[in-house]
Amino acid sequence: MKALRFENNQLNLDEIEKPFREDEALIRVLKSGICNTDVEIVRGYAGFEGTIGHEFIGVVEESKDSPELVGKRVIGEINAGCGICFRCKADDSRHCENRTVLGIISRDGCHAEFLTLPTRNLLQVPDEVSNDQAVFAEPLAAAYGILEQVEILPETKVAVIGDGKLGILCAWSLALKSDNLKLIGKHQNKLTTVEKGNVEGVLLENAKKLNGQMDVVVEASGSESGFATALDLLKPRGKLVLKSTFQGKPTWEAWRVVVNEITIVGSRCGMFSPALDILKAGKVDVESLISEEFSLSDGVKAMEKAMEKGVMKVLLNMDS
Amino acid sequence: MKALRFENNQLNLDEIEKPFREDEALIRVLKSGICNTDVEIVRGYAGFEGTIGHEFIGVVEESKDSPELVGKRVIGEINAGCGICFRCKADDSRHCENRTVLGIISRDGCHAEFLTLPTRNLLQVPDEVSNDQAVFAEPLAAAYGILEQVEILPETKVAVIGDGKLGILCAWSLALKSDNLKLIGKHQNKLTTVEKGNVEGVLLENAKKLNGQMDVVVEASGSESGFATALDLLKPRGKLVLKSTFQGKPTWEAWRVVVNEITIVGSRCGMFSPALDILKAGKVDVESLISEEFSLSDGVKAMEKAMEKGVMKVLLNMDS
Repeated sequence: MKALRFENNQLNLDEIEKPFREDEALIRVLKSGICNTDVEIVRGYAGFEGTIGHEFIGVVEESKDSPELVGKRVIGEINAGCGICFRCKADDSRHCENRTVLGIISRDGCHAEFLTLPTRNLLQVPDEVSNDQAVFAEPLAAAYGILEQVEILPETKVAVIGDGKLGILCAWSLALKSDNLKLIGKHQNKLTTVEKGNVEGVLLENAKKLNGQMDVVVEASGSESGFATALDLLKPRGKLVLKSTFQGKPTWEAWRVVVNEITIVGSRCGMFSPALDILKAGKVDVESLISEEFSLSDGVKAMEKAMEKGVMKVLLNMDS
Repeated sequence: MKALRFENNQLNLDEIEKPFREDEALIRVLKSGICNTDVEIVRGYAGFEGTIGHEFIGVVEESKDSPELVGKRVIGEINAGCGICFRCKADDSRHCENRTVLGIISRDGCHAEFLTLPTRNLLQVPDEVSNDQAVFAEPLAAAYGILEQVEILPETKVAVIGDGKLGILCAWSLALKSDNLKLIGKHQNKLTTVEKGNVEGVLLENAKKLNGQMDVVVEASGSESGFATALDLLKPRGKLVLKSTFQGKPTWEAWRVVVNEITIVGSRCGMFSPALDILKAGKVDVESLISEEFSLSDGVKAMEKAMEKGVMKVLLNMDS
């Protein structure tokens, strides 16, 4: 089968053997989405080698333990726990210390014709949700997952920093709860297109007027300056959600966190089921974030496209 | 009156006018305690000029609005709010944006014969609490204040990093709630002397065996390496309480906070009343932390002593 693989510091579309694991379901991938994490892997920042990709929709071809799933459209929770530790037993394989992660840690990913995942990781996709929408379940779950960690009420003043894909999904997700949501970014054209419902776009250069007013700020720009801006925006005792895994060892003014008694909440992933509900209800217009679709054969080109400035979501289509 | 003042980058024992503010109580200071913040001010890190010091016990000499307090022993909440903003009205002057802070921000401190504070900041000291104990109310409130922000249950596994005064007070305070408390430091002699109740001292070089096991870690060493150690010790989704205001812009591995979904809680101050209750009940042996007492006249020498390695609390006595 074809697979988009990163090995020996090189990205190639390789021909490899179709995967097989007796204890896991075999899934034929329909479409997949390229995430910034894929870009970071290919830039060598993440220490992963193998088939990249973790956002997908597919059809189950084989499942020993759940044969009723065969032929069904599914998405999959990307963290595969060991299944035996206390965290897995408490249904929290997302934090299992021995977990593998689809296309990220010790497990081949979804930019390929086939993948395997434990059946317990799979969620059937309702008919109302299109393939294009379903590919967004993983990043939308990550965005909506903030609500598992931080309470957002209608009156909560929220700012999201970063007008990339992740920032926009965070803004749309939290605007389902807060009546007062600002998306702060550098690109007026992006901000205008994503102003939906009660999301208000604010250019970074105009954000100073909001200083000291926010209850919750989500840092989704992945930059040291974004973190400093977040501290400027927050009220004393406010909450800063750290959503982007910025690389290396940035600096920070830790004393400001202490003096203003800020809480920083590291946030990585979320549950898929609520994200699927939101997609089913048509509450967020994820399809408007698609910039371009490539066939898997053009996977290397697709990755180059995804690295261009201003490009939003790039999809891979395994059938074309 | 005599006052220990930092001005023009110099620390001096000056003769200045006795303070007077019609809207505040006049307090004759009995004893005061030297804190690391005083040391940082004198090192020029904190941008404060004036009389230093914020840990004290005194006797009220004059109070227009509460004459019944005259002659009583008191301690004082160090943050003086504006009294009119919404935070002050919600009884949270500790986070008032226009607050002054005794000996730290725009308000002369307590290493002097007299000071003034709003009467609402004062707490009467019960007879059971000695002057030496009462001087610890402020740092103990700061340590015990962690419990206002983070839930600690008997089974909560807690580590405190840093065997200085603040770390020890944090350890003793949290050990009143947790049955499982480790104090991690570099000095075996200190660790042995502070092992009381259910506090277990652990040398930093042996702390690796605790990696990934802690629910809550308090960083009280004020060092970049202490922060990194805290991340090593925490379980996924653990809580890191940032208690020390380390200076400048240290580096941090922000990605670890995201991937392990750590919550960082900035913690500066706490309420005085619970601290006074603990002192009254004799639950923490703060007096064992006193290294030496100087007369106010020897204030400069006292500060030099407080800066020596291994020295714990240095007190100033205004009567001697």
